[in-house]
Amino acid sequence: MTFREDGYAAVDWAADYLDRVDELPVLAQVRPGETRAKLPASPPERAESFADVLRDVDEILLPAVTHWQSPRFFAYFANTGSEPGILAELLAAALNNVAFIWRTSPASTELEALTLDWTAQLLGLPSDWHGNIEDTASLATIAALAAAREVTGRHVVVCSTEAHSSVERAARLLAMETRKIPVDAEFRLDPSALDLEDAAAVVATVGTTSTTAVDPVPAIADMCERAGVWLHVDAAYAGSAWVCPELRWSQAGVERADSLVVNPHKWLFTPFDCSLHWTRRPEALHAAFSLIPEYVRTSDATDNLSDYGPAFGRRFRSLKLWAVIRCYGREGLQQRIREHVRLAELFEQWVHDDPDWEICAPRRFSVVCFRRNASDEENEAILERVNRSGEIFISHTRLNGRYVLRLAIGNARTTEDDVRRAWDVLRRA
Amino acid sequence: MTFREDGYAAVDWAADYLDRVDELPVLAQVRPGETRAKLPASPPERAESFADVLRDVDEILLPAVTHWQSPRFFAYFANTGSEPGILAELLAAALNNVAFIWRTSPASTELEALTLDWTAQLLGLPSDWHGNIEDTASLATIAALAAAREVTGRHVVVCSTEAHSSVERAARLLAMETRKIPVDAEFRLDPSALDLEDAAAVVATVGTTSTTAVDPVPAIADMCERAGVWLHVDAAYAGSAWVCPELRWSQAGVERADSLVVNPHKWLFTPFDCSLHWTRRPEALHAAFSLIPEYVRTSDATDNLSDYGPAFGRRFRSLKLWAVIRCYGREGLQQRIREHVRLAELFEQWVHDDPDWEICAPRRFSVVCFRRNASDEENEAILERVNRSGEIFISHTRLNGRYVLRLAIGNARTTEDDVRRAWDVLRRA
Repeated sequence: MTFREDGYAAVDWAADYLDRVDELPVLAQVRPGETRAKLPASPPERAESFADVLRDVDEILLPAVTHWQSPRFFAYFANTGSEPGILAELLAAALNNVAFIWRTSPASTELEALTLDWTAQLLGLPSDWHGNIEDTASLATIAALAAAREVTGRHVVVCSTEAHSSVERAARLLAMETRKIPVDAEFRLDPSALDLEDAAAVVATVGTTSTTAVDPVPAIADMCERAGVWLHVDAAYAGSAWVCPELRWSQAGVERADSLVVNPHKWLFTPFDCSLHWTRRPEALHAAFSLIPEYVRTSDATDNLSDYGPAFGRRFRSLKLWAVIRCYGREGLQQRIREHVRLAELFEQWVHDDPDWEICAPRRFSVVCFRRNASDEENEAILERVNRSGEIFISHTRLNGRYVLRLAIGNARTTEDDVRRAWDVLRRA
Repeated sequence: MTFREDGYAAVDWAADYLDRVDELPVLAQVRPGETRAKLPASPPERAESFADVLRDVDEILLPAVTHWQSPRFFAYFANTGSEPGILAELLAAALNNVAFIWRTSPASTELEALTLDWTAQLLGLPSDWHGNIEDTASLATIAALAAAREVTGRHVVVCSTEAHSSVERAARLLAMETRKIPVDAEFRLDPSALDLEDAAAVVATVGTTSTTAVDPVPAIADMCERAGVWLHVDAAYAGSAWVCPELRWSQAGVERADSLVVNPHKWLFTPFDCSLHWTRRPEALHAAFSLIPEYVRTSDATDNLSDYGPAFGRRFRSLKLWAVIRCYGREGLQQRIREHVRLAELFEQWVHDDPDWEICAPRRFSVVCFRRNASDEENEAILERVNRSGEIFISHTRLNGRYVLRLAIGNARTTEDDVRRAWDVLRRA
């Protein structure tokens, strides 16, 4: 294999892809099973060339890709695998470091700590928190709730009905019980309904998945402190917004959390997967997870990343976040986040001004919840129609029992023209 | 940013790295904290170039890298991030797909299923198992034990004293209790000591971490069947050996397992992380994990990968395994595994023939456990000396209370000369 030539070809393919992703149908226009049927049912006996692989990626896989990199991907939480992040993933794979203890990868262990501290500075978080990287917020939440169970000895997890499903999944995994609290008219956890008797943890959300609502963290923190309950803040999406001081109103009280998760793979231009987990109580995570067997015991007096979460092996994920922060700089990150918020405001205004449509939840960041003044079925039909057109990809949620459309802005390539086109496509549908 | 030029530079750096990794000290020759101190304590305000990042990777991070890609990395389970796998990671990052449901990434969802089926064929596993990719064996084991707890309603996990620490970590996470069974003289779980009363699951290991011992899976499977206990087989390392028919003696009984984990990032030339989890009872995993919230509900009648494990989001990990299988072919994989086993046999023979050294456990695959006929302290000093020399990197374990050295062969670049050099370095030390 000629790694250098194959590598140039892969870079060319990736560069061309990013150049033309704008022209591809955003949602993959394929039927289940269609793609698999085009590929051989059995592996090859003899080696094929990487060029063969690249050809099949282009011809067979690409039509089955939903283009998260498209500027008109407006579903879920739109994100960006930015260029420096992509190349850092290449470097990380080339180094192939597995950082279960310091010695097996001093560079990755120390860069992870540094990059978490850098990000804490960017987001205005306390400087003395311990941070590490998990693959997804699901795993960070599992780690936080395991620590909460460890230190409180209790088994109830409290969150709002609008918390992400990963909270209930984590609790179920940990043999804990989830207690869901109602939300107020703006989809925020209603602290008057909080009953912390026998609770191990409260998961407060800053930027819920449906509407990006911000739970009243200061009031929740007061109650958690009084009751000796672990406070985990899920700011997976909205935490990245804190790079802009004017959006830090949503950070109130977060400095009092026991743990916090923020996903740079959501809104900080870092390729998936990269979920940051901070805690002011690292000893609790350590107590929940540390178990160093003889075959990895060393005399190195250092912190081992595998002591803070469920996975033992860890790849060099900090490299991509570090590369992104350096290649954007604080200003570059702020500029793009601000532009996304501006575009969302613009779209919100268009919807608001059109009597055939309505806004369904307050807009806090870069996500707009809206619907046409029509039945649920008609709104669902609109969604299916615009997604099948390939011009845009949006998702939905359900609020107060009604089917609601969501437009999420988070891709670095998204322009005002893209958002205008989304509005045009929606009105046509 | 000029992605294409930066990309060529990153490929050049990676190509040069792989060319010269042979000449670099295998174990990073740095002190804790030294690397971090060379990097700025705060993130930049303005954008830097990717060339700046690449320069710092080369000048500051590289000396702090322990070279898993070195042909003389003989510690833990030596592995390989092979060239097609590295480039596939670049493509996966460029596509940045997040496959929590089929619709968000049909290509990744279907390629994952196909690649797991291809690998099952390569390894001679049942053709009707359901497979998916987790980041590490830790997570696959967590998923398996969660399914076992779900279907049995019981909370005891049984494994041998030689099982990987991830089993106990997983059980602790799941609020289950671990019961450890003694091993026989060859470090295999002793089935006569198995008491399955109230057991939810047995974890049998094919290729233990310390000595690569193979638990008697057929006898364990008999007992599990009778007692209605879930059988999870941890073949994280040795499972890859099954690509060679002559090594499938170690697969006896595995076809009767409820679940199985094999890590291509260990011995199938795939960059970390890529852990394969198969089950013949997908409905049990589904019952333990599935929880589809409204905001990702679709009318697509398909399998969702997030229903089979703890993480909700998933990256496009199948791409690298698929690329590796294609660029090696069955023959290429077999040839390299056979060469690793041959080199381990050779080293074993040298140790065996030298009266100053002894073999400490039967060699089954490509790992040799040995020690000098001297005190534990002297053996530990040998290990520290050879590792500090940078010429080779080995690790240790403890068997029957004694400190034992381990030489693990698993890097695609390792030659007979490298193994001979390891033996020379060890004898000099």
